[in-house]
Amino acid sequence: MKLPESLEWALHCTTALAQVPGETVSTAQLAEHFDLPTAYLSKQLALLVRAGVLSGTTGPRGGFRLARPTSEITVLDIVEAIDGAGNPYLCREIRQQGRGALPASQCRERCTIATTMDRAHQAWRDSLRSMTVADLIGDLPASIPERTRRLLSRG
Amino acid sequence: MKLPESLEWALHCTTALAQVPGETVSTAQLAEHFDLPTAYLSKQLALLVRAGVLSGTTGPRGGFRLARPTSEITVLDIVEAIDGAGNPYLCREIRQQGRGALPASQCRERCTIATTMDRAHQAWRDSLRSMTVADLIGDLPASIPERTRRLLSRG
Ligand code: FES
Ligand code: FES
Repeated sequence: MKLPESLEWALHCTTALAQVPGETVSTAQLAEHFDLPTAYLSKQLALLVRAGVLSGTTGPRGGFRLARPTSEITVLDIVEAIDGAGNPYLCREIRQQGRGALPASQCRERCTIATTMDRAHQAWRDSLRSMTVADLIGDLPASIPERTRRLLSRG
Repeated sequence: MKLPESLEWALHCTTALAQVPGETVSTAQLAEHFDLPTAYLSKQLALLVRAGVLSGTTGPRGGFRLARPTSEITVLDIVEAIDGAGNPYLCREIRQQGRGALPASQCRERCTIATTMDRAHQAWRDSLRSMTVADLIGDLPASIPERTRRLLSRG
Protein backbone atom coordinates (compact mmCIF):
# COMPACT_ATOMS: atom_id res chain seq x y z
CA MET A 1 0.00 0.00 0.00
CA LYS A 2 1.55 3.25 -1.14
CA LEU A 3 0.51 6.86 -1.40
CA PRO A 4 1.83 8.71 -4.45
CA GLU A 5 4.95 10.84 -4.16
CA SER A 6 2.94 13.74 -5.55
CA LEU A 7 0.90 13.80 -2.34
CA GLU A 8 3.93 15.25 -0.58
CA TRP A 9 4.11 17.95 -3.25
CA ALA A 10 0.43 18.78 -2.76
CA LEU A 11 0.81 18.98 1.01
CA HIS A 12 3.84 21.26 0.79
CA CYS A 13 2.32 23.52 -1.89
CA THR A 14 -0.87 23.90 0.16
CA THR A 15 1.01 24.69 3.37
CA ALA A 16 3.27 27.14 1.46
CA LEU A 17 0.21 28.96 0.05
CA ALA A 18 -1.22 29.01 3.57
CA GLN A 19 1.83 31.00 4.65
CA VAL A 20 1.25 33.75 2.07
CA PRO A 21 -2.41 34.72 2.56
CA GLY A 22 -3.76 36.97 -0.17
CA GLU A 23 -0.92 36.14 -2.58
CA THR A 24 -1.42 34.40 -5.90
CA VAL A 25 1.51 32.08 -6.61
CA SER A 26 2.26 30.55 -9.99
CA THR A 27 3.05 26.92 -10.78
CA ALA A 28 6.54 28.00 -11.85
CA GLN A 29 7.17 29.69 -8.50
CA LEU A 30 5.97 26.64 -6.56
CA ALA A 31 8.01 24.30 -8.77
CA GLU A 32 11.13 26.39 -8.16
CA HIS A 33 10.43 26.74 -4.45
CA PHE A 34 10.41 22.97 -3.97
CA ASP A 35 12.47 21.90 -7.02
CA LEU A 36 9.62 19.93 -8.59
CA PRO A 37 8.87 19.23 -12.28
CA THR A 38 6.52 21.99 -13.46
CA ALA A 39 4.32 19.99 -15.85
CA TYR A 40 3.55 17.21 -13.41
CA LEU A 41 3.14 19.64 -10.51
CA SER A 42 0.63 21.51 -12.62
CA LYS A 43 -1.54 18.36 -12.80
CA GLN A 44 -1.49 17.99 -9.03
CA LEU A 45 -2.45 21.64 -8.53
CA ALA A 46 -5.37 21.08 -10.93
CA LEU A 47 -6.53 18.18 -8.73
CA LEU A 48 -6.41 20.47 -5.69
CA VAL A 49 -8.49 23.05 -7.56
CA ARG A 50 -11.00 20.42 -8.60
CA ALA A 51 -11.32 19.35 -4.95
CA GLY A 52 -11.96 22.93 -3.81
CA VAL A 53 -8.71 23.16 -1.83
CA LEU A 54 -7.11 25.78 -4.11
CA SER A 55 -8.56 28.30 -6.49
CA GLY A 56 -6.69 29.08 -9.67
CA THR A 57 -6.64 32.13 -11.93
CA THR A 58 -5.09 32.40 -15.39
CA GLY A 59 -3.21 35.22 -17.09
CA PRO A 60 0.21 36.78 -16.56
CA ARG A 61 -0.42 37.43 -12.85
CA GLY A 62 -2.37 34.19 -12.49
CA GLY A 63 -1.70 31.32 -10.15
CA PHE A 64 -3.04 29.67 -7.05
CA ARG A 65 -4.28 30.58 -3.62
CA LEU A 66 -6.24 28.70 -0.97
CA ALA A 67 -9.92 28.38 -1.81
CA ARG A 68 -10.93 28.32 1.87
CA PRO A 69 -9.56 29.45 5.24
CA THR A 70 -6.70 27.26 6.53
CA SER A 71 -8.89 26.00 9.38
CA GLU A 72 -11.41 24.66 6.87
CA ILE A 73 -8.99 22.60 4.80
CA THR A 74 -8.23 19.24 6.36
CA VAL A 75 -5.30 16.99 5.56
CA LEU A 76 -7.90 14.47 4.40
CA ASP A 77 -9.15 16.97 1.79
CA ILE A 78 -5.64 17.14 0.31
CA VAL A 79 -5.01 13.39 0.51
CA GLU A 80 -8.30 12.55 -1.19
CA ALA A 81 -7.84 15.27 -3.80
CA ILE A 82 -4.65 13.53 -4.92
CA ASP A 83 -5.29 9.86 -4.18
CA GLY A 84 -9.08 9.61 -4.34
CA ALA A 85 -11.42 8.60 -1.56
CA GLY A 86 -11.55 4.88 -2.34
CA ASN A 87 -11.07 2.19 0.26
CA PRO A 88 -7.68 0.51 -0.32
CA TYR A 89 -9.33 -2.84 0.42
CA LEU A 90 -11.63 -4.31 -2.18
CA CYS A 91 -13.95 -7.20 -1.25
CA ARG A 92 -14.26 -9.39 -4.33
CA GLU A 93 -16.82 -11.69 -2.65
CA ILE A 94 -14.48 -14.66 -2.43
CA ARG A 95 -17.00 -16.15 -0.01
CA GLN A 96 -19.26 -16.81 -3.03
CA GLN A 97 -16.53 -18.43 -5.07
CA GLY A 98 -15.17 -21.97 -5.51
CA ARG A 99 -16.17 -25.24 -3.92
CA GLY A 100 -16.82 -23.48 -0.60
CA ALA A 101 -19.10 -20.85 -2.15
CA LEU A 102 -21.87 -19.70 0.15
CA PRO A 103 -25.33 -19.33 -1.34
CA ALA A 104 -26.30 -15.75 -2.25
CA SER A 105 -29.01 -15.89 0.43
CA GLN A 106 -26.27 -16.03 3.08
CA CYS A 107 -24.38 -13.11 1.54
CA ARG A 108 -26.89 -10.29 1.62
CA GLU A 109 -24.95 -8.36 4.23
CA ARG A 110 -21.48 -6.94 3.73
CA CYS A 111 -18.99 -9.56 4.93
CA THR A 112 -17.24 -9.25 8.29
CA ILE A 113 -13.80 -9.03 6.69
CA ALA A 114 -14.74 -6.05 4.50
CA THR A 115 -16.56 -4.41 7.41
CA THR A 116 -13.39 -4.72 9.48
CA MET A 117 -11.26 -3.23 6.71
CA ASP A 118 -13.81 -0.41 6.23
CA ARG A 119 -13.66 0.45 9.91
CA ALA A 120 -9.87 0.76 9.81
CA HIS A 121 -10.10 2.96 6.71
CA GLN A 122 -12.57 5.20 8.55
CA ALA A 123 -10.20 5.44 11.53
CA TRP A 124 -7.47 6.58 9.13
CA ARG A 125 -9.78 9.11 7.47
CA ASP A 126 -10.98 10.42 10.85
CA SER A 127 -7.40 10.94 11.95
CA LEU A 128 -6.55 12.88 8.77
CA ARG A 129 -9.78 14.87 9.01
CA SER A 130 -8.91 15.98 12.53
CA MET A 131 -5.83 17.88 11.27
CA THR A 132 -6.26 21.11 9.28
CA VAL A 133 -3.79 23.16 7.29
CA ALA A 134 -3.99 25.71 10.13
CA ASP A 135 -2.73 22.97 12.49
CA LEU A 136 0.07 22.02 10.09
CA ILE A 137 1.48 25.54 9.94
CA GLY A 138 0.56 26.51 13.51
CA ASP A 139 3.71 24.96 14.97
CA LEU A 140 6.21 26.56 12.60
CA PRO A 141 8.61 29.04 14.19
CA ALA A 142 7.67 32.56 12.96
CA SER A 143 10.84 32.79 10.90
CA ILE A 144 9.60 30.11 8.47
CA PRO A 145 6.39 31.80 7.25
CA GLU A 146 8.32 35.10 7.09
CA ARG A 147 10.85 33.48 4.82
CA THR A 148 8.17 31.79 2.69
CA ARG A 149 6.46 35.17 2.24
CA ARG A 150 9.72 36.79 1.21
CA LEU A 151 10.38 34.04 -1.35
CA LEU A 152 6.90 33.65 -2.80
CA SER A 153 5.27 37.08 -2.70
CA ARG A 154 5.26 38.90 -6.03
CA GLY A 155 5.05 42.30 -4.34
CA MET B 1 -3.53 3.52 -2.32
CA LYS B 2 -4.40 -0.15 -2.85
CA LEU B 3 -4.06 -3.35 -0.87
CA PRO B 4 -3.23 -6.43 -2.95
CA GLU B 5 -5.98 -8.74 -4.09
CA SER B 6 -4.10 -11.59 -2.44
CA LEU B 7 -4.83 -10.05 0.96
CA GLU B 8 -8.44 -11.18 0.54
CA TRP B 9 -7.17 -14.70 -0.17
CA ALA B 10 -5.02 -14.67 2.97
CA LEU B 11 -7.90 -13.44 5.11
CA HIS B 12 -10.28 -16.09 3.78
CA CYS B 13 -7.73 -18.92 4.06
CA THR B 14 -6.93 -17.97 7.63
CA THR B 15 -10.59 -17.76 8.64
CA ALA B 16 -11.30 -21.07 6.88
CA LEU B 17 -8.46 -22.76 8.81
CA ALA B 18 -9.84 -21.20 11.98
CA GLN B 19 -13.09 -23.10 11.34
CA VAL B 20 -11.35 -26.50 11.20
CA PRO B 21 -9.25 -26.58 14.38
CA GLY B 22 -6.81 -29.49 14.46
CA GLU B 23 -7.04 -30.10 10.71
CA THR B 24 -4.12 -29.73 8.33
CA VAL B 25 -5.34 -28.39 5.00
CA SER B 26 -3.32 -28.44 1.79
CA THR B 27 -2.75 -25.57 -0.64
CA ALA B 28 -4.68 -27.54 -3.28
CA GLN B 29 -7.69 -27.87 -0.97
CA LEU B 30 -7.68 -24.17 -0.14
CA ALA B 31 -7.24 -23.24 -3.81
CA GLU B 32 -10.21 -25.40 -4.76
CA HIS B 33 -12.31 -24.17 -1.84
CA PHE B 34 -12.01 -20.56 -2.99
CA ASP B 35 -11.23 -21.11 -6.70
CA LEU B 36 -7.80 -19.45 -6.49
CA PRO B 37 -4.63 -20.13 -8.54
CA THR B 38 -2.59 -22.71 -6.60
CA ALA B 39 0.93 -21.46 -7.35
CA TYR B 40 0.27 -17.87 -6.40
CA LEU B 41 -1.82 -18.88 -3.37
CA SER B 42 1.11 -21.00 -2.24
CA LYS B 43 3.30 -17.86 -2.09
CA GLN B 44 0.75 -16.07 0.06
CA LEU B 45 0.51 -19.03 2.45
CA ALA B 46 4.31 -18.98 2.74
CA LEU B 47 4.11 -15.30 3.77
CA LEU B 48 1.57 -16.22 6.46
CA VAL B 49 3.92 -18.95 7.72
CA ARG B 50 6.85 -16.55 7.78
CA ALA B 51 4.76 -14.10 9.84
CA GLY B 52 3.85 -16.82 12.37
CA VAL B 53 0.14 -16.78 11.47
CA LEU B 54 0.12 -20.30 9.98
CA SER B 55 2.36 -23.27 10.46
CA GLY B 56 3.08 -25.53 7.54
CA THR B 57 4.08 -29.17 7.28
CA THR B 58 5.28 -31.02 4.21
CA GLY B 59 4.66 -34.56 2.96
CA PRO B 60 1.57 -36.29 1.53
CA ARG B 61 -0.61 -35.35 4.54
CA GLY B 62 1.09 -31.96 4.82
CA GLY B 63 -0.52 -28.58 4.70
CA PHE B 64 -1.40 -25.64 6.89
CA ARG B 65 -2.99 -24.91 10.20
CA LEU B 66 -3.11 -21.87 12.46
CA ALA B 67 0.13 -21.32 14.35
CA ARG B 68 -1.65 -19.69 17.29
CA PRO B 69 -5.11 -19.62 18.88
CA THR B 70 -7.67 -17.59 16.87
CA SER B 71 -7.85 -14.99 19.64
CA GLU B 72 -4.12 -14.35 19.28
CA ILE B 73 -4.09 -13.66 15.56
CA THR B 74 -5.15 -10.14 14.70
CA VAL B 75 -6.33 -8.89 11.33
CA LEU B 76 -3.26 -6.62 11.42
CA ASP B 77 -1.01 -9.70 11.61
CA ILE B 78 -2.53 -11.00 8.36
CA VAL B 79 -2.50 -7.62 6.60
CA GLU B 80 1.14 -6.98 7.47
CA ALA B 81 2.16 -10.55 6.58
CA ILE B 82 0.93 -9.92 3.04
CA ASP B 83 1.47 -6.20 2.50
CA GLY B 84 4.33 -5.40 4.88
CA ALA B 85 4.28 -3.02 7.82
CA GLY B 86 5.51 0.06 6.00
CA ASN B 87 3.82 3.43 6.23
CA PRO B 88 2.09 4.18 2.90
CA TYR B 89 3.30 7.77 3.20
CA LEU B 90 6.96 8.47 2.60
CA CYS B 91 8.45 11.83 3.64
CA ARG B 92 11.12 12.69 1.07
CA GLU B 93 12.17 15.84 2.97
CA ILE B 94 10.82 18.24 0.35
CA ARG B 95 11.23 20.94 2.98
CA GLN B 96 15.00 20.73 2.40
CA GLN B 97 14.71 20.96 -1.36
CA GLY B 98 14.62 23.78 -3.93
CA ARG B 99 14.76 27.54 -3.53
CA GLY B 100 12.68 27.34 -0.35
CA ALA B 101 14.94 24.72 1.27
CA LEU B 102 15.15 25.02 5.03
CA PRO B 103 18.58 24.67 6.62
CA ALA B 104 19.30 21.23 8.10
CA SER B 105 19.44 22.84 11.56
CA GLN B 106 15.68 23.53 11.29
CA CYS B 107 14.92 19.97 10.17
CA ARG B 108 16.20 17.87 13.04
CA GLU B 109 12.71 16.81 14.08
CA ARG B 110 10.36 14.77 11.94
CA CYS B 111 8.20 17.20 9.97
CA THR B 112 4.61 17.94 10.98
CA ILE B 113 3.23 16.55 7.72
CA ALA B 114 4.90 13.15 8.18
CA THR B 115 3.94 13.09 11.86
CA THR B 116 0.31 13.65 10.85
CA MET B 117 0.45 10.87 8.26
CA ASP B 118 2.14 8.56 10.80
CA ARG B 119 -0.62 9.18 13.31
CA ALA B 120 -3.30 8.23 10.77
CA HIS B 121 -1.38 5.07 9.88
CA GLN B 122 -1.24 4.16 13.58
CA ALA B 123 -5.01 4.71 13.89
CA TRP B 124 -5.50 2.30 10.97
CA ARG B 125 -3.15 -0.25 12.52
CA ASP B 126 -4.81 0.07 15.94
CA SER B 127 -8.20 -0.58 14.38
CA LEU B 128 -6.94 -3.71 12.58
CA ARG B 129 -5.13 -4.88 15.71
CA SER B 130 -8.34 -4.68 17.72
CA MET B 131 -9.99 -7.39 15.58
CA THR B 132 -8.86 -11.01 15.88
CA VAL B 133 -9.58 -14.06 13.77
CA ALA B 134 -11.80 -15.23 16.65
CA ASP B 135 -13.86 -12.04 16.21
CA LEU B 136 -14.06 -12.56 12.44
CA ILE B 137 -15.54 -16.03 12.73
CA GLY B 138 -17.49 -15.39 15.94
CA ASP B 139 -20.48 -13.94 14.11
CA LEU B 140 -20.90 -16.71 11.55
CA PRO B 141 -24.11 -18.73 11.85
CA ALA B 142 -23.20 -22.25 13.10
CA SER B 143 -24.07 -23.77 9.72
CA ILE B 144 -21.10 -22.09 8.05
CA PRO B 145 -18.25 -23.57 10.14
CA GLU B 146 -20.04 -26.97 9.99
CA ARG B 147 -20.05 -26.77 6.22
CA THR B 148 -16.40 -25.61 6.09
CA ARG B 149 -15.43 -28.58 8.29
CA ARG B 150 -17.31 -30.99 6.04
CA LEU B 151 -15.59 -29.58 2.96
CA LEU B 152 -12.05 -29.21 4.29
CA SER B 153 -11.53 -32.03 6.78
CA ARG B 154 -9.55 -34.97 5.43
CA GLY B 155 -11.13 -37.36 7.93
S1 FES C 1 -16.13 -11.84 0.73
FE1 FES C 1 -14.01 -11.58 0.84
S2 FES C 1 -13.72 -9.76 1.90
FE2 FES C 1 -15.83 -9.82 1.53
S1 FES D 1 9.42 17.16 4.53
FE1 FES D 1 7.80 16.63 3.25
S2 FES D 1 6.56 15.34 4.41
FE2 FES D 1 8.33 15.61 5.59
